[in-house]
Parts: sequence; C-alpha cells; structure tokens
Amino acid sequence: MRRPDHQTQTDVTAGAVLAPYLRSQAADFLRSLRLHRENSAPTDAGPQAAEQAAGALRRSSRRISGTLHTFRTALDPLWAEQLRTELAWLSGTLAREHAYAERLNRLLDALHGLSGTPLPSARAESAGGSAAKERAGLGVGAARAGALLERQLTLARTRAHSAALQALGSSRFHAVADAVALLASEVPLAPSAAAPAAELLGEPADRAEQRLLGAVAALSSDETAEPYNEAQDAPWHQTRLLLRLHRYAHEVVRGAPDPVLAGPGHALDLHRDASEAAAAAASAARTPRIAPATAYALGVLHADQRHEVGAARAVFRETWPYAAAVTAR
Amino acid sequence: MRRPDHQTQTDVTAGAVLAPYLRSQAADFLRSLRLHRENSAPTDAGPQAAEQAAGALRRSSRRISGTLHTFRTALDPLWAEQLRTELAWLSGTLAREHAYAERLNRLLDALHGLSGTPLPSARAESAGGSAAKERAGLGVGAARAGALLERQLTLARTRAHSAALQALGSSRFHAVADAVALLASEVPLAPSAAAPAAELLGEPADRAEQRLLGAVAALSSDETAEPYNEAQDAPWHQTRLLLRLHRYAHEVVRGAPDPVLAGPGHALDLHRDASEAAAAAASAARTPRIAPATAYALGVLHADQRHEVGAARAVFRETWPYAAAVTAR
Repeated sequence: MRRPDHQTQTDVTAGAVLAPYLRSQAADFLRSLRLHRENSAPTDAGPQAAEQAAGALRRSSRRISGTLHTFRTALDPLWAEQLRTELAWLSGTLAREHAYAERLNRLLDALHGLSGTPLPSARAESAGGSAAKERAGLGVGAARAGALLERQLTLARTRAHSAALQALGSSRFHAVADAVALLASEVPLAPSAAAPAAELLGEPADRAEQRLLGAVAALSSDETAEPYNEAQDAPWHQTRLLLRLHRYAHEVVRGAPDPVLAGPGHALDLHRDASEAAAAAASAARTPRIAPATAYALGVLHADQRHEVGAARAVFRETWPYAAAVTAR
Repeated sequence: MRRPDHQTQTDVTAGAVLAPYLRSQAADFLRSLRLHRENSAPTDAGPQAAEQAAGALRRSSRRISGTLHTFRTALDPLWAEQLRTELAWLSGTLAREHAYAERLNRLLDALHGLSGTPLPSARAESAGGSAAKERAGLGVGAARAGALLERQLTLARTRAHSAALQALGSSRFHAVADAVALLASEVPLAPSAAAPAAELLGEPADRAEQRLLGAVAALSSDETAEPYNEAQDAPWHQTRLLLRLHRYAHEVVRGAPDPVLAGPGHALDLHRDASEAAAAAASAARTPRIAPATAYALGVLHADQRHEVGAARAVFRETWPYAAAVTAR
C-alpha cells in the first residue's frame, strides 16, 4: 500500500519491535484472564463482566496468534507454531458462546423488522385489508420462528458456555496460560531477530498485505454473485481473516492499526454475521414438524440475511481504499 | 417541467389537437378488436396473436380513457365520463389474464435464481457440505413452491381468460365497441373546444403533471421505508397511474411521450409487478397443509420479491429527472 517505507525502524532490531508488542499483548491476556476468573462466580454483576473479560481474552489471543504466525521467522519457530495453534483453539472456543448470542440478537432484530410494528393479535384479527392480513400472518409465523430460534440458539449458547468453562479449567488451557505468562516476561526470539526491523519484519508484513490484496482482487464481482449461493461466502470469510492478519502486522510494525481498513473490516464482520445468521435460519427451517407459517417466516428471514450479505459486500467494495485491486477483475 | 411552453399550439383549437388523437386511438382499438376476434378461434397461431391483440386493445383503451379523463373540459362531459368508466372496466378485465401469466413467469424465474443451478435430485442427495445441502434443501422446497404457484396462478389465469372472453361477448362490451366506433369518426367535443389548444389543453396537462410531481414528492424516502410493509406500496402504485396519465396528456399535447419519463415509468411497472408477485407468494404460503419446505421457499421468494420492490424504488429515484421534487422530502 502506498505508504512511506518503514523509515522509523531502520535503526532498531526486529526483536526490539516485536518483543514489546508481544509482551504487552501477553500482559493484556493475563489481566483479562484474572478479570474473567474474578467475575465467573454466579453474582449479579458477574455475567456481563465475565463476557467483557472473555472478549478481551479473545482479542489478545488473536493478536498474539496472528503475530506469531506473520513474524515466525523472527521467533523460535517450533514454539511460535505450537502456541499459535493453542491460542487459535482458545479464541475459537471462547468465540462460540459470543457468536451464538450475537446471532440470536441479530435474527430476533431482523424478525422484528420483518413483521413491522408489532400488531397485538386482537388488532391483527380485526384489521381489514390484505396488507394487514399479510403482516399479521407473517407476525404469527415470525413469533413462532423467533421462539424456535431462541430455543435452538440458546441451547447452542449454553453448550458453548459449558465448553468454554470446561476449556478454561483444562490442563490444556493451563499450559497455554503458562506459555503466555512466560511470553509476558521473555519473548523467545530467533537469533535473526537481531537484524533490522525494516528487513526482518517489513518483508513478512508486506507479504501479509499482498495476500490480502490478492484475496480482494479474487473476490467475485457483483455481476457474477448468486445471492443464495452460500459457497461463494468462503472467499469473503478468508479475506476477513487476511485483513485481520494484515491489521495486526500493521500494529506491530507501525504501532497502530491501518485506519483506512476500519470500514472494510467492519463490512467483512457484518458479512460473516449475516452469512451465519442466514445459515442458522435455514438450519432452523429443517427442524422436523414445524408449522408452515414458521417455515415461511424463516424463509423470509433467510432471504433477508442473504440480502444483508450482499449489502455488506457492497459496503466493502465502497469502503475498500484500493480501487485498482477491486476493479482489476 | 422545464420545457418551452406550448408554442406550436397557439394557433390551433383544442378540438383540432384532441380529435385526431382520439380518432387515431379509436381506430387502433377497432383494428385490435378485429385481430383479436380473428385469432380467438382455437388454432395453433391463435393464442399468441390473440394475446398481442388483447395487449393492443388495452393499450388504446388506456389512452382513450386517460385522455377523456384529463381533457374532459374540452369534451361532452357526461359522455366522456361514461366511456372512460367502461374502458377502465374493459382494460382491467383484459389485463388480469396477462398479469397472472406474467406473475407466474416472474415467480418461476425468481425461484430458479434462488435455488441456483438446478440440482438433479440424485446429485443433490449425494453432494456433501452444508452449503450443498442447504441449496438442495431450498431446491426441493423451491420445486414444490413452483408447482404450487403454477397450479394457483394457472387456475387464476384460466378464470381471468374465461372472464375476458365473457366480457368480450357481453352486451356491455358491444356498447363500448359501438361508442369507440363512433369516436373513430366523430369526437363529441364541448363547445369550448373551439378555444386555443394552448389554453384549454395546456392547463389540464399541467395539472396532470403537477399531480404527478406532488405524488413523487410525497413518496416515502429510503430511510423511512419498511421493506415488508405492503401498505407503503399504495402511493407508488398511485404514482405509476399518475405518470401514465401525464404520459398520455403529453402525447396529446406534444404529439409524443415524454422521453425522460421512460426510465421512471419502467421502474414503477417493475415495482408493481414485484409487489404483486410478493403478495402471490405470501398468498400461496397460506394454502392449508403445505409442507414446511414449500412454505420456507415461498418465504424466501416473498422476501426476494420485496427486495425487488425496494430495488425498483431505488431505480425510480435514480432515473427520476426532477431531483428537487424527490429530495424536497
């Protein structure tokens, strides 16, 4: 990307840039872990504070893991690869509970929007005109669809919560926590980390950026997109992960995230959320013995979320700051 | 609208402008009626030619009826009002069959697009991956939904066809045909039709335009639109009719339709088609004892057509040539 080259780092070693970043993220990780433990007791204030702490834990896990991946040549490679895998497991496990909760909120909000101003059933029954009847019809199905989704996603969330608690009590997790505690005091650098940062970190950071640009250039254009072809979502999800890796590499090398990518990054998050919400609606519609009105509302909901997928892609294209890479295809 | 004033008609009477237009439309009406009769025998070439003739019949009916309405002050008022009512009945009756056929085509096309590349059932069953399963799932429901819509809309179309044939054989229709035959030779002008065209026709034409501009200015903005609120479609349908009246008035006064309104007019036609197709999908979903998969596909279809409603509104706004009137609200 058209930025002045890594001038500020010509006189510092790769280790001197990388180690403080990793130490600071490790310290964040340990702080969040402590907060999570303190708030996991079943008190009133507990759940929300525990959720926030789990979010912060995922945040630093992702950053450490991304940094270990992108800059592995400056680190002890075996150690880096192993810790990266374990952190990916941890943040994936913690993310699930949060994802189910968010998905349910998103779907219930969408159902609310689809069924319009809530019609009390008495008014719905007495209201004349086919438009009023249609909306009341969707209203009944929407209420049932909402109840079905609430049951299914709450169950999934509860299971994910148990799995997360189990993971946080496991010996596997204690090993991760120990490794991060070690990282907070001493980063296992490779001997090559004595080389200038511009050289040893600049090249992998550029590679992370090139992979992102390549992925964006390969994204399907609006013209070829089939809105209901879920298989076409995968390259967008992959782009989201590559954008995140690029963002973290940028944080390491420049000390701050790339501000021009905040918009496109947010669009890709929305894309992922809408894609998974659509899949949850489709999955709920495959529940045996549901009423046709419920299935109908779930179909409307599915289409609505697939529409949101398309809208998120449009926002991504509008906010993506490197026009040439997008219009090249 | 910013056009030079009716300069060409300062020296001609209103009758000299109005009468040739009505005579020519009446001649078109009679020609289409003859073609329709010749092709209504059950032959191979018949149905298509009869359909085209019915389309032409509707086209001239709408123009005569619109002209009688807009320029009623230049005509025998009682006669104009009565013939207008009868032509509206006729074109409405003839339009129904065509509308059901078009609606079915639109819905089957949309279902085809929603279920993606047609999956033969064997391939659908053996295909792995949740995306493949989801599409196959929609495929089965989509096929059933298509069959249901085909049954319902074909039945409706057949009924509309019988109703149209019955109407064309009725004494009510013969009275209309007689009135139009009379119109083809002599237009019952009001004494005031001897006044200059610029005066007597310009004012009603301007009023038709003002009603259109007023209706457009009152259309809901994107921000306040609720995509599933069918009641919000009505002002758009009304605008479509006002645009048509303005178009015909323009044809009378200037001798040709207003070219800048072709795009917005087409968008309003699409809006109406998508709105009615969505309602047909919703109505089919209320069929008792349908399978949930069918209801689900109909829900997806409903949402898809409501999305098309929104897209048509966006195209209307983009192509509407009088920006101020739209952004005023």
